Amino acid sequence: MADEYLKKFINMERKTKKMINIDPLQTGGILTNEARQALIEWGDGYSVCDFCLGKLDEIKTPPIYDFVHKILPEFIGADRVCLTHGAREGKFMIMHAIAKPGDFIIIDKNAHYTTYIAAERAGLKIKEVENSGYPEFKIDVDKYENTINELKEKKANIALLLLTWPDGNYGNLPDVKKVVEISKQYKIPLLINAAYAIGRMPVKMNEIGADFIVGSGHKSMASAGPIGLIGMKKEWEDVVLKKSQYFKGKNIEELGCTVRGVPIITLMASLSYVTERVKKWSEQVEKARWFSEELEKFGIKQLGEKPHNHDLMFFESEKLYEISKKHKEGGFFLYKELKENNIWGIKPGLTKHFKLSTFAATREELEKVLQIFENILKKN
Amino acid sequence: MADEYLKKFINMERKTKKMINIDPLQTGGILTNEARQALIEWGDGYSVCDFCLGKLDEIKTPPIYDFVHKILPEFIGADRVCLTHGAREGKFMIMHAIAKPGDFIIIDKNAHYTTYIAAERAGLKIKEVENSGYPEFKIDVDKYENTINELKEKKANIALLLLTWPDGNYGNLPDVKKVVEISKQYKIPLLINAAYAIGRMPVKMNEIGADFIVGSGHKSMASAGPIGLIGMKKEWEDVVLKKSQYFKGKNIEELGCTVRGVPIITLMASLSYVTERVKKWSEQVEKARWFSEELEKFGIKQLGEKPHNHDLMFFESEKLYEISKKHKEGGFFLYKELKENNIWGIKPGLTKHFKLSTFAATREELEKVLQIFENILKKN
Repeated sequence: MADEYLKKFINMERKTKKMINIDPLQTGGILTNEARQALIEWGDGYSVCDFCLGKLDEIKTPPIYDFVHKILPEFIGADRVCLTHGAREGKFMIMHAIAKPGDFIIIDKNAHYTTYIAAERAGLKIKEVENSGYPEFKIDVDKYENTINELKEKKANIALLLLTWPDGNYGNLPDVKKVVEISKQYKIPLLINAAYAIGRMPVKMNEIGADFIVGSGHKSMASAGPIGLIGMKKEWEDVVLKKSQYFKGKNIEELGCTVRGVPIITLMASLSYVTERVKKWSEQVEKARWFSEELEKFGIKQLGEKPHNHDLMFFESEKLYEISKKHKEGGFFLYKELKENNIWGIKPGLTKHFKLSTFAATREELEKVLQIFENILKKN
Repeated sequence: MADEYLKKFINMERKTKKMINIDPLQTGGILTNEARQALIEWGDGYSVCDFCLGKLDEIKTPPIYDFVHKILPEFIGADRVCLTHGAREGKFMIMHAIAKPGDFIIIDKNAHYTTYIAAERAGLKIKEVENSGYPEFKIDVDKYENTINELKEKKANIALLLLTWPDGNYGNLPDVKKVVEISKQYKIPLLINAAYAIGRMPVKMNEIGADFIVGSGHKSMASAGPIGLIGMKKEWEDVVLKKSQYFKGKNIEELGCTVRGVPIITLMASLSYVTERVKKWSEQVEKARWFSEELEKFGIKQLGEKPHNHDLMFFESEKLYEISKKHKEGGFFLYKELKENNIWGIKPGLTKHFKLSTFAATREELEKVLQIFENILKKN
């Protein structure tokens, strides 16, 4: 291996970092200055374990114990919180701990792809609750009940219900309380995938009434990745965090400890800011609705729930699609023109359907985004 | 939640960072300056996914594809490499993918605790190959064969052999080639846990002849955590990285993508340095042996293999233990006196038995460590 070749991995520049970011994956994960400082202070591998006496979440210096056992449970309204490598790993942990291969899980049709794969990895069979299709793609939460009854007739064992709240495609927020009711009525635990909720909007699992919730640090909590969390009701603690038969202090599903590195420190350093920002969620919804209305004036149609309740939105544009057919850049023209104008986050190649998030951009920045969309439509 | 309270998670100082570090967990994970710079550039959640077209290891900008599919396979001599959240997650992935619940795994008695827990999580039964006990605690690798035969007589299905190389307690490097022979003779795949090898010493899995190897970025590759890797023979790729039935581009065991965050960038940024340092492994072994000899002159006995072949060493001291019985700080006196002298890494409370690593410290720094040990023994 030529050593010269390895130099290309040094000083890699992230070219997008000063752009107006409307990428739904990224707008909730931009670090605070405090988190950025924490990266340098705690970046060395295993530095968080300086004063570990055996278990990550019990470390007192830095105050991980307080953070995991007091701050986070209060923040998300859960009896017990544990750290994971991300929302998907949290979903797998729960499924693997509470279900057995061959059991059924009922999920919403708008579920993230990792929900399917986590269930598949745990050996579960999947049954979907359909959405309403074009244009709103809403999950009819009442159908969780029909689906339960169908499966019960076939003598299937249903281990878990899962609801994606909001989903990562349309940003729809289904009626979670209704699913909680069904979950309680049929005594089947409910897991809420709140990767796009926790850290953006106020979320209290105990007020919602679910058994489990998962969140994502890198997606929505201004943290470096990978990191996520599980919130659970007390009654599930001994199941999900079952102790090893070999090492009494260690949990099986956590493989002892999960996030043994700097992402936990950035999550901690950002939480003060994140706690404040969720209080301003109504402003975010207002901003998203305003942006959607403005973009629709150019004939770009917002799909998903309307009026919309989340910063993640899905748009449809026949006009942009028509342009792409004749443009020398083809389907890539929109991505390229936005990028030239310092706007980041629409996936390369998309014109007819694309999603975006208004979470990180200011109104002024979004004015600019609207202006650029208008120019692109006029120019072409 | 009082917002004031959250401020304690901001500007947390890591007080140990300028000390002479002899903590085995930490000496191989200290970042290079290049990695430290990378943290700031790529710290935002999901920043590595800027140009993702669906799969982390296929990202071309930054050059993760090259790194995972060309550089790392060459570095560790494996046909295929995949990223994991750490060595333990790698072990679980392999066990979960290739074995079924109830199968046996044969492991060495010196295995890390996470080997037991990964096997437990995968539903495997564990059979141990004993070590030789005090003072060397060597694994008699020939006994893998007896153990296989014993289990075969009982009609047990043996899914995997695992060897810890070196182990994390004594730093012993068992005869891995012998275990490879047995593995081939009985056609049972072999996994090497090389969390303390890859990134410290030259390791080529294909020269060793094993089926799988796992490594740790935060433990031994000068990377922020959590991150690790699996190296495997080509024939195992379709088993361990089996594709989802729901999403053809996604692997089940990786839940789609694993290290979607800044630790992958630090691993990349440090590899040029790490590639150079493994070439100087013989100097590390020499330094460890010298340190061990010097410490033994004070009556502090090195356990484990002798002469020693790794920077991780286990010591026994009746003298320090005797002092602790009378000292006002009790068992904590050694930890405290070392810390006062700017030496970090002996676990609080230990005196009779403790481990340390000479990997990160220079000879000059280790001279100081020896001097302090001598002072402590004289003074008390």
